[in-house]
Amino acid sequence: MGNLKLVQLAENGKRTKIKVGSVMIGEGLVIVGGPCGVESEKQTLKTAEAVKTGGGMMFRGGAFKPRTSPYDFQGLGLEGLKLLARARENTGLPIVTEVIDPRDVSWVCEFADILQIGARNMQNFSLLREVGKTGKPVLLKRGMYSTLKEWLNCAEYILAEGNPNVILCERGIRTFETYTRNTLDLSMVPAVKELTHLPIFIDPSHGTGKLSLIEKMSLAAVAAGADGLLLEVHCNPSEAKSDADQQLTPDQFAALVKKITKLSRFMDEKLFKTSIITGGDQI
Amino acid sequence: MGNLKLVQLAENGKRTKIKVGSVMIGEGLVIVGGPCGVESEKQTLKTAEAVKTGGGMMFRGGAFKPRTSPYDFQGLGLEGLKLLARARENTGLPIVTEVIDPRDVSWVCEFADILQIGARNMQNFSLLREVGKTGKPVLLKRGMYSTLKEWLNCAEYILAEGNPNVILCERGIRTFETYTRNTLDLSMVPAVKELTHLPIFIDPSHGTGKLSLIEKMSLAAVAAGADGLLLEVHCNPSEAKSDADQQLTPDQFAALVKKITKLSRFMDEKLFKTSIITGGDQI
Amino acid sequence: MGNLKLVQLAENGKRTKIKVGSVMIGEGLVIVGGPCGVESEKQTLKTAEAVKTGGGMMFRGGAFKPRTSPYDFQGLGLEGLKLLARARENTGLPIVTEVIDPRDVSWVCEFADILQIGARNMQNFSLLREVGKTGKPVLLKRGMYSTLKEWLNCAEYILAEGNPNVILCERGIRTFETYTRNTLDLSMVPAVKELTHLPIFIDPSHGTGKLSLIEKMSLAAVAAGADGLLLEVHCNPSEAKSDADQQLTPDQFAALVKKITKLSRFMDEKLFKTSIITGGDQI
Amino acid sequence: MGNLKLVQLAENGKRTKIKVGSVMIGEGLVIVGGPCGVESEKQTLKTAEAVKTGGGMMFRGGAFKPRTSPYDFQGLGLEGLKLLARARENTGLPIVTEVIDPRDVSWVCEFADILQIGARNMQNFSLLREVGKTGKPVLLKRGMYSTLKEWLNCAEYILAEGNPNVILCERGIRTFETYTRNTLDLSMVPAVKELTHLPIFIDPSHGTGKLSLIEKMSLAAVAAGADGLLLEVHCNPSEAKSDADQQLTPDQFAALVKKITKLSRFMDEKLFKTSIITGGDQI
Repeated sequence: MGNLKLVQLAENGKRTKIKVGSVMIGEGLVIVGGPCGVESEKQTLKTAEAVKTGGGMMFRGGAFKPRTSPYDFQGLGLEGLKLLARARENTGLPIVTEVIDPRDVSWVCEFADILQIGARNMQNFSLLREVGKTGKPVLLKRGMYSTLKEWLNCAEYILAEGNPNVILCERGIRTFETYTRNTLDLSMVPAVKELTHLPIFIDPSHGTGKLSLIEKMSLAAVAAGADGLLLEVHCNPSEAKSDADQQLTPDQFAALVKKITKLSRFMDEKLFKTSIITGGDQI
Repeated sequence: MGNLKLVQLAENGKRTKIKVGSVMIGEGLVIVGGPCGVESEKQTLKTAEAVKTGGGMMFRGGAFKPRTSPYDFQGLGLEGLKLLARARENTGLPIVTEVIDPRDVSWVCEFADILQIGARNMQNFSLLREVGKTGKPVLLKRGMYSTLKEWLNCAEYILAEGNPNVILCERGIRTFETYTRNTLDLSMVPAVKELTHLPIFIDPSHGTGKLSLIEKMSLAAVAAGADGLLLEVHCNPSEAKSDADQQLTPDQFAALVKKITKLSRFMDEKLFKTSIITGGDQI
Repeated sequence: MGNLKLVQLAENGKRTKIKVGSVMIGEGLVIVGGPCGVESEKQTLKTAEAVKTGGGMMFRGGAFKPRTSPYDFQGLGLEGLKLLARARENTGLPIVTEVIDPRDVSWVCEFADILQIGARNMQNFSLLREVGKTGKPVLLKRGMYSTLKEWLNCAEYILAEGNPNVILCERGIRTFETYTRNTLDLSMVPAVKELTHLPIFIDPSHGTGKLSLIEKMSLAAVAAGADGLLLEVHCNPSEAKSDADQQLTPDQFAALVKKITKLSRFMDEKLFKTSIITGGDQI
Repeated sequence: MGNLKLVQLAENGKRTKIKVGSVMIGEGLVIVGGPCGVESEKQTLKTAEAVKTGGGMMFRGGAFKPRTSPYDFQGLGLEGLKLLARARENTGLPIVTEVIDPRDVSWVCEFADILQIGARNMQNFSLLREVGKTGKPVLLKRGMYSTLKEWLNCAEYILAEGNPNVILCERGIRTFETYTRNTLDLSMVPAVKELTHLPIFIDPSHGTGKLSLIEKMSLAAVAAGADGLLLEVHCNPSEAKSDADQQLTPDQFAALVKKITKLSRFMDEKLFKTSIITGGDQI
């Protein structure tokens, strides 16, 4: 794993916990819901309400959308951030939103509770350093082409700037398979936990790109020990300006949260916390 | 998905069940344990006993080992099959073993309860046709570079010969990631189930290649809805002639079976059988 | 590269040459042309004539077609081999044809001058051993999922059975790119030559899957030092039962042969035979 | 190919030419040489002299190095750019250098003749827009996990900002193969040329990562029709702070330039400019 220093798991096994509003990341499953992109006032506030009602603990939505084509919807920018802030006011849910330009970091911090670094920017080292200089929690998505080693080194970039609050997020890698949009690599959950002290979230929405697969992959992520889930929810998925095929309706989200919460509580049993290898506590 | 006919899920949602000895595949989780290769009488019988004691429901072991180099251990052949037959006598566990040559199919059938087609032979169409002509259940592993579409077409080859008893098995695909031996693609569990009526097993041993990751990926596979698990167990892993790094000890196996059985029973709850999308039964 | 023994380049740098009819593989560029599959008498004989006229030195065509779906055209089998034999009679061109079942090897040898092992069967070890037991030259295609190391080990399987006449053939690997059917990995030409004494051919037809890219990739293969080219030619590509999008017409083939022959002769200059690294002869 | 507009090849087949100093990109082969990173005054000026003497037409060197680990050499920054400017003064060679942060674009423009966007930043859309706002020629490397479609869309981002001077550069993609550092995808040369009017360069140094493979892949690139080559040269490769295994010595560079120049002139013959498919001029 190269030169890893600050992200490495110490011998004492101590794990990072990050407090965001009333949510403690690293203690029990954290469910983050919200649309792919912030599109309008109505869509944002309505979806945020639905996420809250459905049992979500944080709200996510992109004001800056990195898109393959320059002619696709690029997000609402500042206006979008303001809508996210209003969603937070209304619901009390902390906001997770992506930042894509080092020049934006300082003012996006005014609106975001967690800064997301997207897959395409995982190795945007200027951006990593910039978010490293803030104290804000950072959700660092794995690049779709990135090895575990490269990913952890990107976390190291952030920690090396003095910001210890990094959450890793697996969102699927690019493989030859075309049935799914990406190949969700759940083995990263135990792999990240045996190498680092950082929490790890799973994004089954991008990880599969198929509505019909999200439920089972969410349950699998919980069973694998994920610290959180990122789920795309839209008050009207068929009208979404991006990722229309993978966003849950409010009802589907609520039904899914019920299941994953139930499973998560079951997995809290002592039996599942003991390692079959050492016999001791799971790292 | 091309020309799929016989493997496709019918509108009535009826799923294939396969009776092997006293085990019914497709009804509850099936745990298959055993060494990568059959190496000696002592190793085979001792490990079979351990699999039985630890809660395994079938015994697996390779008498023919497809190996990268011609100078690596190639398996014991007929002698190995005889040892497997003795293991079955001793324990009552049905035998899963690989066949790699169409000329061997008829006589391997004498010893095997389930014929395994390995990842490297997934598109060995002569072999697929030959096992299709027998009535024996076939465990068809996904090629390490095969799309879902190609994999299902290989099952179609077997069904088209008149053998409906096919079990699919995801064992990890080849990607750029090097921390794990392969990338275990658990999304194949719901994907296979939405497209076909065939049961699907998961092989977390080959799928990760790392002892430390097998536990969590087994639990994740169960949560995703897998019909069975293939787990490599060796009475003395450090002496194994192949796959030494990924074989469980008998104690580890027993501890793992305990956990996955508990989780499997929990997942049998009605809540988890209902789809968040249709509101009806999960396909 | 593991346990490689017989395929390794010796210190004296001696390279394998294989005489097939009047063609010497390993001495100057060998151009092999022919249809993907043998479909009919007319198509076979007419295309063979065109390959001969256009400057091809061997004729290729599949009598056994490994196809993704069991319902696709599977080849004419024995009847196809007889047509290939007649094509040889008519034109004098040696025949390259694929064998896919170890049980067929002995009688396919009656018709073929070079036995082809296709990409899907690269690790069909029973088949490798069987062709290794014959003295026939073997064209071993790289599996679409195979590392150089695995590929060379498969050649080792054949040589270890006593057959030294192996030609390696790069035909594109599977990657995430979808514009091309496969990604043609031309770096294998110098890589194979620095590690082994075996000749290496390139198949730009499968390697790109796009008619418009074949010309430039053929020239590139020659410049990289390939010992031969496999080109798909069909007397009427639009009627082909497989690979319709990548087969050259007789005219296109003849025009291409003219170019690659001219380039090949140019590359024979002493300047290009000297290594920039050692200053001595190219290995 | 999605929404491509400005990068698309027009019906008249007109291709972009870019004048940089006395070099006209798009007319004959352009050879760019230089070290991976600018490390010191001596190394930079000495290597620049060697590139000039050896026949290079532009000088490349990184002042900002995007590195996997935050603890690796990150480049000399402004000091490095000043050294590049001095190298230009001494040799008259135009400078190609990477920019990795949108905030740096305006002042890097003072020193660079061509701005390079590296593989990791291919989808750094803020950076693309920023270089699009300058009039400077941009060398846009293909991301190591990017499809042709994504790559061309990134060029579209730059053109859409009003900067038509984009050069594409294939530098190898990430695959499962480990013998080479990346898999150099030469099929991109004809693919880019059939879809766009932009020139395309090849980087065999990163594309193979192996000194011994660079010569043959450079020749192959020329035969495939590449408009330019990026070659890593270092006055003392064994002391290089990055990419030590793939940098040519001045002598190797000069010997290679001799060969590729000779081949390039040969390929200028009319025969090679005619398409085998249309019979007319090559697009």
